[in-house]
Amino acid sequence: MKGASYRYPPDLSQRIIKASEADFVDGVEWLELDCDLGKLFGKLARRFVSSAAGDSLSVDLIASHGQTIRHLPHPGGPSATLQIGEPSFIASTTQLPVVADFRRSDIAAGGEGAPLSPILHEYLFRDPRRWRAVVNIGGIANATILPPTGSKQLPSAADCGPGNMLIDSAMQVLFGLSYDRNGRIAAQGRVISEVVDSSLRNPYFGRKPPKSTGRELFGRGFLEKIMQGMKRASPRDCIATITEITVASIADFILRICPAVDEILLCGGGAKNSHLIGRLSALLKGKTVSTTARLGYDPDYIEAFLWAFLAFRFIGQNPINMNSYTGAKGPYIPGKLCLP
Amino acid sequence: MKGASYRYPPDLSQRIIKASEADFVDGVEWLELDCDLGKLFGKLARRFVSSAAGDSLSVDLIASHGQTIRHLPHPGGPSATLQIGEPSFIASTTQLPVVADFRRSDIAAGGEGAPLSPILHEYLFRDPRRWRAVVNIGGIANATILPPTGSKQLPSAADCGPGNMLIDSAMQVLFGLSYDRNGRIAAQGRVISEVVDSSLRNPYFGRKPPKSTGRELFGRGFLEKIMQGMKRASPRDCIATITEITVASIADFILRICPAVDEILLCGGGAKNSHLIGRLSALLKGKTVSTTARLGYDPDYIEAFLWAFLAFRFIGQNPINMNSYTGAKGPYIPGKLCLP
Repeated sequence: MKGASYRYPPDLSQRIIKASEADFVDGVEWLELDCDLGKLFGKLARRFVSSAAGDSLSVDLIASHGQTIRHLPHPGGPSATLQIGEPSFIASTTQLPVVADFRRSDIAAGGEGAPLSPILHEYLFRDPRRWRAVVNIGGIANATILPPTGSKQLPSAADCGPGNMLIDSAMQVLFGLSYDRNGRIAAQGRVISEVVDSSLRNPYFGRKPPKSTGRELFGRGFLEKIMQGMKRASPRDCIATITEITVASIADFILRICPAVDEILLCGGGAKNSHLIGRLSALLKGKTVSTTARLGYDPDYIEAFLWAFLAFRFIGQNPINMNSYTGAKGPYIPGKLCLP
Repeated sequence: MKGASYRYPPDLSQRIIKASEADFVDGVEWLELDCDLGKLFGKLARRFVSSAAGDSLSVDLIASHGQTIRHLPHPGGPSATLQIGEPSFIASTTQLPVVADFRRSDIAAGGEGAPLSPILHEYLFRDPRRWRAVVNIGGIANATILPPTGSKQLPSAADCGPGNMLIDSAMQVLFGLSYDRNGRIAAQGRVISEVVDSSLRNPYFGRKPPKSTGRELFGRGFLEKIMQGMKRASPRDCIATITEITVASIADFILRICPAVDEILLCGGGAKNSHLIGRLSALLKGKTVSTTARLGYDPDYIEAFLWAFLAFRFIGQNPINMNSYTGAKGPYIPGKLCLP
């Protein structure tokens, strides 16, 4: 297993944010961004394929999630989602088959299009005896609850709430940095507990799974509300408080929804934030909190592994059943295949 | 071979026009329209599959072009195009594999994404001995020139000029009808030849291929100019004259660009206008003018056949070379596959 991460060039980041946030969008810009991202993904994939070849690893198939620009889940109703980064460009640049656009297959099957990662968590991490929760802390934090293999209870999953999204946005505004490396700033601040408490009163946290969320609920508007409660707080205290909101919403989810869980495996960007891990351990006293690295899977690439896994299911024409995760009504084959 | 056409419900037509025309679009509406069209296509495809089963025809694969919302060709530069009607819904509704989104593969291969139909014309209609031209008369008339199979000359394609666009607009203005059924009104009128001659002096007709055109050149402005030359003419004479301009520009194209052609095969809506066919025969004396029906292909479904053909190439992993038609830089496999 080999992985690599690449950062978006700043101009593309700006264009993505703009395309994601505006209600009314420049149609031509949406299309051009879709193509430009596809070309970038193609170029980076080609670079990665070459470097893998240097390690005698050969790549047969590429999976692309794409960049989410909109995600509008409507439980029970028609959901809509948009991931851009035209996969035809990846196929033509790498001359490899590409499977992409997984979430729309789920929506077409009657699901909410998210979360998809539980299917991989189930496959990799279900234990014969222990109850486990796998918590992926990306922009949003999502948890997969894995009863022991023999149990009659089915695995389930839900988006807990904000992941790094709030922390990263606040770091940008308050420190001009893109994230709080290792949680160092949060560790130096003081948590304003009234703000944490009032934030946790958001009705999303009380809703029962299955549920999924995104920037629409925990984006700029939610952050501004939090910040209004901390007008006199220092920037460090703000970051500490926002980190605590994130941690507490995750802990709360575990304790409310699946108190039987005794091992929590973290993955995603948040799994690098040791302050966050420490706080989560403290709030989940008596339970083991670690990262997926404990079981040999780099927490940075669990999500990338997911897309590869789904693409592999496509190629094998092997349907997945996401009913208990996304509400999809029957098994389906995820993604769309582009050939070079 | 079996075909069917279905009309959009009026509210969807309105939404499509709105989504196509505005510079700034409601992002959510774009996505919802994409899904709503996908669902409609799925429902209609399912209905068609059932009715085909009644005729003991079984459907193995569905091809979907989608509804064009944007098409921005940039010769030599990056083109962009958007066809909506999410194919995952078609796959899930019909439980059949679907190949869709053909134009983007062409763009990823460096082409303009259009015209794609010449590849089918070449495949179906190229003759071992005869030079043929396939003329598709839609809003615009476009021709594919097919040298004999053994010839060193390559097939080529271009937009000749206006197709039904001028006739239909004039019918709307003068008769309140959407088109001149079977050319009956044109057949009753008298052609004002000075107006035909002066219209044919438009520099577009003199330009050498490759060339493509649209409503920008032969839309309202062009029609108004023609109408000014016929202020005292009867409505019938106007339709006769406008039909003659259309016919003469096609004949002119054949005679100037490919005089070697001795058989013209018509398809598209204009192939139903027997007055137009008669006039074209008269202007192309010595050449055979007929519709693709002569070779067993319903002229109404040549375009639908094109998408089926491209989907079939995908399934066979059989690349197409569009270089001389769209400028695509190398062979590629068109479309994206969704599995149910």
